[in-house]
Amino acid sequence: MMIPQETRTVRVGLAGLGNVGAGVYKNVGRNSALIQKRTGADLQIKRVVVRNLTKARDVEVPADALSTDWRELVNDAEIDIIVELIGGVDEAFELVSTALQAKKIVVTGNKALLAERGQELFALAEKCGVPIYFEAAVAGGIPIIQTLQEGLVGNRIQSIHGIINGTCNYILTRMTQAGLGYKEALQEAQDKGYAEADPTLDVSGWDAAHKAIILASLSYGFWINPADVYVEGVDRVELLDIRYAERMGYAVKLLGVIRADGSGRVEVRVQPSLVPRSHLLASVNGSFNAVVVKGDVVGETLFYGRGAGQDPTSSSVISDLCDAAASLIYGFRHSGFVPHGLYGKPKPVDETVSHYYLRLLVDDVPGVLAQVATLLGERKIGISSVMQPEGEDTPPGSIPLLMMLHDAPLKAVKDAISAIQGLSCVREKAVWMRVEPLD
Amino acid sequence: MMIPQETRTVRVGLAGLGNVGAGVYKNVGRNSALIQKRTGADLQIKRVVVRNLTKARDVEVPADALSTDWRELVNDAEIDIIVELIGGVDEAFELVSTALQAKKIVVTGNKALLAERGQELFALAEKCGVPIYFEAAVAGGIPIIQTLQEGLVGNRIQSIHGIINGTCNYILTRMTQAGLGYKEALQEAQDKGYAEADPTLDVSGWDAAHKAIILASLSYGFWINPADVYVEGVDRVELLDIRYAERMGYAVKLLGVIRADGSGRVEVRVQPSLVPRSHLLASVNGSFNAVVVKGDVVGETLFYGRGAGQDPTSSSVISDLCDAAASLIYGFRHSGFVPHGLYGKPKPVDETVSHYYLRLLVDDVPGVLAQVATLLGERKIGISSVMQPEGEDTPPGSIPLLMMLHDAPLKAVKDAISAIQGLSCVREKAVWMRVEPLD
Repeated sequence: MMIPQETRTVRVGLAGLGNVGAGVYKNVGRNSALIQKRTGADLQIKRVVVRNLTKARDVEVPADALSTDWRELVNDAEIDIIVELIGGVDEAFELVSTALQAKKIVVTGNKALLAERGQELFALAEKCGVPIYFEAAVAGGIPIIQTLQEGLVGNRIQSIHGIINGTCNYILTRMTQAGLGYKEALQEAQDKGYAEADPTLDVSGWDAAHKAIILASLSYGFWINPADVYVEGVDRVELLDIRYAERMGYAVKLLGVIRADGSGRVEVRVQPSLVPRSHLLASVNGSFNAVVVKGDVVGETLFYGRGAGQDPTSSSVISDLCDAAASLIYGFRHSGFVPHGLYGKPKPVDETVSHYYLRLLVDDVPGVLAQVATLLGERKIGISSVMQPEGEDTPPGSIPLLMMLHDAPLKAVKDAISAIQGLSCVREKAVWMRVEPLD
Repeated sequence: MMIPQETRTVRVGLAGLGNVGAGVYKNVGRNSALIQKRTGADLQIKRVVVRNLTKARDVEVPADALSTDWRELVNDAEIDIIVELIGGVDEAFELVSTALQAKKIVVTGNKALLAERGQELFALAEKCGVPIYFEAAVAGGIPIIQTLQEGLVGNRIQSIHGIINGTCNYILTRMTQAGLGYKEALQEAQDKGYAEADPTLDVSGWDAAHKAIILASLSYGFWINPADVYVEGVDRVELLDIRYAERMGYAVKLLGVIRADGSGRVEVRVQPSLVPRSHLLASVNGSFNAVVVKGDVVGETLFYGRGAGQDPTSSSVISDLCDAAASLIYGFRHSGFVPHGLYGKPKPVDETVSHYYLRLLVDDVPGVLAQVATLLGERKIGISSVMQPEGEDTPPGSIPLLMMLHDAPLKAVKDAISAIQGLSCVREKAVWMRVEPLD
């Protein structure tokens, strides 16, 4: 807010010079004068740790600044801040914990590390009296961590709905807009560099789940156990359901959903979900991310931007570097993300309640709808709409039966679907997805 | 980030108990335990200044905490932070400057004050060594100030396009969705409490201009003079043009536009503008606000939420109170908003370049299009599309002629339109608006 009185040199050790690491190196250099004027910090990346010293790279790092051993960063007394961008969990945990013990401030973009071992690392950070910054771990360039920690600090968070995996959103967007099948869309995402050669972490929903765990832990002040998170990926989404959803006024998105109920129980889940086309989230396309946060004071907010990529993610790392530099210059602040225990405990996924989309392939004979409706009604599941489209490409004597179901607990819905699949008039495994009205 | 070690009581003086002030009082009380756990600050609103002690209010304030003289806040040694929510410029200036001189931290939501006298106040804050926080001054509950100061601190800001006046957006939304005329929509906004009895500041575009001045000054590090801002309101928007814009794939929105060109000149303007329907901004409806920020590192981002109202705006005030409390507990930080002078000077509005929408009422005779096109071509203004809709409700012998014009400087466009209006085949004053492709 005010004018920095003097410039302080802040030396940074960078572990990892992959896509994001190279972006950090490039952009810190490019905007260094601006950052210095704005913050009073002259950020200097003193050493860079890579796996392979001779590999060709996008950015030019002086040879004597390169190293293959991250311990050199930890042992360098001049280095104040260590940026961890090596990915993975085990080695990254060792790096971060060793850095904290050496009283180095840590900046990381490693969502898997924080989702799986964040509780230990933040406890260690407390003990060592040095902070960890992690804006880049969730939603790329979108400053959602800071927004939750500071901008919305006066709010009880009611719910978060996020499109927080750019790869999955790209795949679903291309299926929707170009009519591609899942496999074609995935191949295209790989060809364009939006998906890894092994896309499992993304398409399984687990990358999004790691981010949802971080957002939920931040919002509710207790660490979410990955075992308490319900995760489904985009790999089972069929073009047919995207088309039916469109006809019913919905888009299909992979959503991370975090929601507290009236008794303070928190659900965290990741699933392909139907989103009303009239909601902004339905228009978030390609590799973009967006996070809708509802707070008890602020109401509905949405934060949108690129969810991955060299430059956007490095924007978040640089923001953290400036925050870390301010901690050095002006002292640490204690705020925002705390296990305050004021509210929140995990909600078993079977008890989570939502609307559902259900697609069946049934015999084209009278009485089928009544049989299905009876099984739903017996479990107190209401039907909000039914569509039985004509002239579809289904086997002779069969027709699709589509239903939108009212709010119901997952357990009741799974039970009903299991019973429905037992009906002799139902030909295939039922297809069903959550519907998020977002109202 | 870390756990507050102890709780510190922070005493707040609140000047103004109108809509937002009452929200601050109510919500600080409601979420006080949560705020304390998150930040280590126990926020206590010790005194509240009102104009009328006996007026009935939404919130219950103990009678002995009320006062009609803001000097009591300044002179109270126990009060650490003064929240200015009295509005207006002159008295608010006196209050804020007196508070700064008394070393009180100031939190304000007063956009007019900052846009008109911010330069003086921030200089005084520097001199006195106490900060001013002003998240609530722009875009209600959206934490856009913090985002620019911190989240995007590593970015050169390339442009900002904002829907930053909820009243105007409500009016334009109702015209678009319900086919209301401007006056009907304004009346409805007044009936619903979205517009003041005297709506001039909103509908003239000046409230949005005040906010744009703050965003631009923050982004470019020099104070924008209100005289350098080009402002048009919604009061001249006709339903007819909204309908034509829709047919051509656009929505009409009152936009604050801030943009730096390649040579570091900054334009700041507020106008009803055509926005492509495919862009998220076109779907921001009702009293919601949204700000699109493009940075050289992060790319395109968008921040959305309620732009006004008791609760959303108080969410921003509370965020500032927590930041102010952290300043007290951990010391001030100097960062973000500084007149760094690295880039940026005002760009004369006549030199600003954009696309344009142009509507003429012309004689239905051959050769008219050629005459108009010639006058545009002579000024090097390209035509990207022409629409001459049939069967419209126009006087006998006349037809509407609609054009979308390529990028051109305002001066050339004004000059061309003046020449076009001189043609004998042109019947009425031309209607024209900027088009913002947002690509």
